[in-house]
Amino acid sequence: MGYCGILSFLDLVGVAVFAISGMLTAGRKKLDIFGAVVVATVTAIGGGTLRDMLLGEPVFWLQKPIYLWVILVSAAFFPVFLHQKKPPTRAILIADAFGLAVFSITGAAVANQKGLPIILVLVMAIMTGAAGGLLRDILCGEIPLILRREIYATAAMAGGLVYALLDRWKVSFPASAYIGMAVVFLLRGIAISRNFNLPRLTIADSDEK
Amino acid sequence: MGYCGILSFLDLVGVAVFAISGMLTAGRKKLDIFGAVVVATVTAIGGGTLRDMLLGEPVFWLQKPIYLWVILVSAAFFPVFLHQKKPPTRAILIADAFGLAVFSITGAAVANQKGLPIILVLVMAIMTGAAGGLLRDILCGEIPLILRREIYATAAMAGGLVYALLDRWKVSFPASAYIGMAVVFLLRGIAISRNFNLPRLTIADSDEK
Amino acid sequence: MGYCGILSFLDLVGVAVFAISGMLTAGRKKLDIFGAVVVATVTAIGGGTLRDMLLGEPVFWLQKPIYLWVILVSAAFFPVFLHQKKPPTRAILIADAFGLAVFSITGAAVANQKGLPIILVLVMAIMTGAAGGLLRDILCGEIPLILRREIYATAAMAGGLVYALLDRWKVSFPASAYIGMAVVFLLRGIAISRNFNLPRLTIADSDEK
Repeated sequence: MGYCGILSFLDLVGVAVFAISGMLTAGRKKLDIFGAVVVATVTAIGGGTLRDMLLGEPVFWLQKPIYLWVILVSAAFFPVFLHQKKPPTRAILIADAFGLAVFSITGAAVANQKGLPIILVLVMAIMTGAAGGLLRDILCGEIPLILRREIYATAAMAGGLVYALLDRWKVSFPASAYIGMAVVFLLRGIAISRNFNLPRLTIADSDEK
Repeated sequence: MGYCGILSFLDLVGVAVFAISGMLTAGRKKLDIFGAVVVATVTAIGGGTLRDMLLGEPVFWLQKPIYLWVILVSAAFFPVFLHQKKPPTRAILIADAFGLAVFSITGAAVANQKGLPIILVLVMAIMTGAAGGLLRDILCGEIPLILRREIYATAAMAGGLVYALLDRWKVSFPASAYIGMAVVFLLRGIAISRNFNLPRLTIADSDEK
Repeated sequence: MGYCGILSFLDLVGVAVFAISGMLTAGRKKLDIFGAVVVATVTAIGGGTLRDMLLGEPVFWLQKPIYLWVILVSAAFFPVFLHQKKPPTRAILIADAFGLAVFSITGAAVANQKGLPIILVLVMAIMTGAAGGLLRDILCGEIPLILRREIYATAAMAGGLVYALLDRWKVSFPASAYIGMAVVFLLRGIAISRNFNLPRLTIADSDEK
């Protein structure tokens, strides 16, 4: 991050959106306020943290604590927002798709700029985009939603692939990232509006537990 | 750690207390003996391990395996202790409050001595103090207790804040740490004795899952 | 890894076996295809990843993406394999025992070659061998199987101990590793065939939650 003002701003908006998503899940599970802030934090920065630790990079929010402040402010405004009216489900899903688009492509960009092969760029796109939501669900005692249904990480992977290919085809940096983000956002948006899911993998219960 | 003999000793006592807390949770879940030792280990050193990995520091128990030995000895004595009588709930809660006080302030001290801003000192206080118990509950298939009720991480944060402010006001090191620990211990003790919890964040079930 | 062609090959076979084990668990939980691949990946490389992060080593699959390809190929062939007939439970358990043997000893070898004390060699053997399966169960919303029953991590520890002692007694490297693997495999095999478990740690429910 930091390569470009607009990207940094998008990234902070993504953090705010994911923090709200964490607060919503926490609220449904009747966590206390502190627990909700923890879940919001893990949702918002968990993916990027895992990416940085795996890549041996300094963890991004230790370098730029503004990420934590954005989470705290989002969490503080959350009850205000809630008391006004019931959360508009579709608006939240679309905001979440936006966060996914930004995070997965910034994750892909970090891996790509280290010269890693495409498969690792895709892994980092998926991890940065989806691991926060996965950790959120684990903390809240649920099987992670992204493992069970919907084109979610698949959208992150597809956008990461488009970005990585554009980069190899000499499309210059911010442009390739924006196109990648648009791919993630569109694919995820289509999945939401059509309620389109990947096929499930089902195995008949065998005789062992 | 290692700056001071008394602090190192307190830290080892905290490890023993948290290991016992892990054994107790494991026992309620009917884990096997090995599983109980794993849960005890994760409870006792999980928070500090996460802190060191995030900060890019060498993991403390790889430098000083005595932490692992303390866990093994605590685990070995645990059945003896159990067979004598039912675990005294209040004594365990107070011992746990002691462990929380020591861990959160040692975590805050590591971050503070790296010159990190206060918000990161507080994050490290909370993480070092509370992440072990959080991982314990995840391993045991429960929504982490600290997310649901009671002044727990809040006490860690308050003590970390007091410590960090004292340090900035030139109170010398071991003294500032002891005062921070006392704050954590007292706040947590009051929460236990009054059964005082943070308000819950509740959201009516919306129409989506 | 990479010290020796045969060991590297065994390691890749272990990855394939663990990936299949992840697919099986995912299938029982009715995850979607993408989720199943995530669970397969975490099962296959989670233990080694945690080991490398704790030791401050570069993460192995970032150095050698072939590990990820082996997982993808295993996942791709999995449905073919399933459609033919019901998975043969015992064959899977034995394959899993093989993976455990390879992973735990390669984990022990990494720690041993850094000159770490034996207790840390054993921790790394257990972690590399068993953490993948533990993460698999957490992702799938279950209390990890290895915490609840069966000689599993115990076999990893015993094999790691044999390997570490042989190394200290000047048995040369690949031989000591093979003997360690044989110990893990045999112990685990005996546990499977005899259905022999460690005693459970049980605590009567106390008055607190």
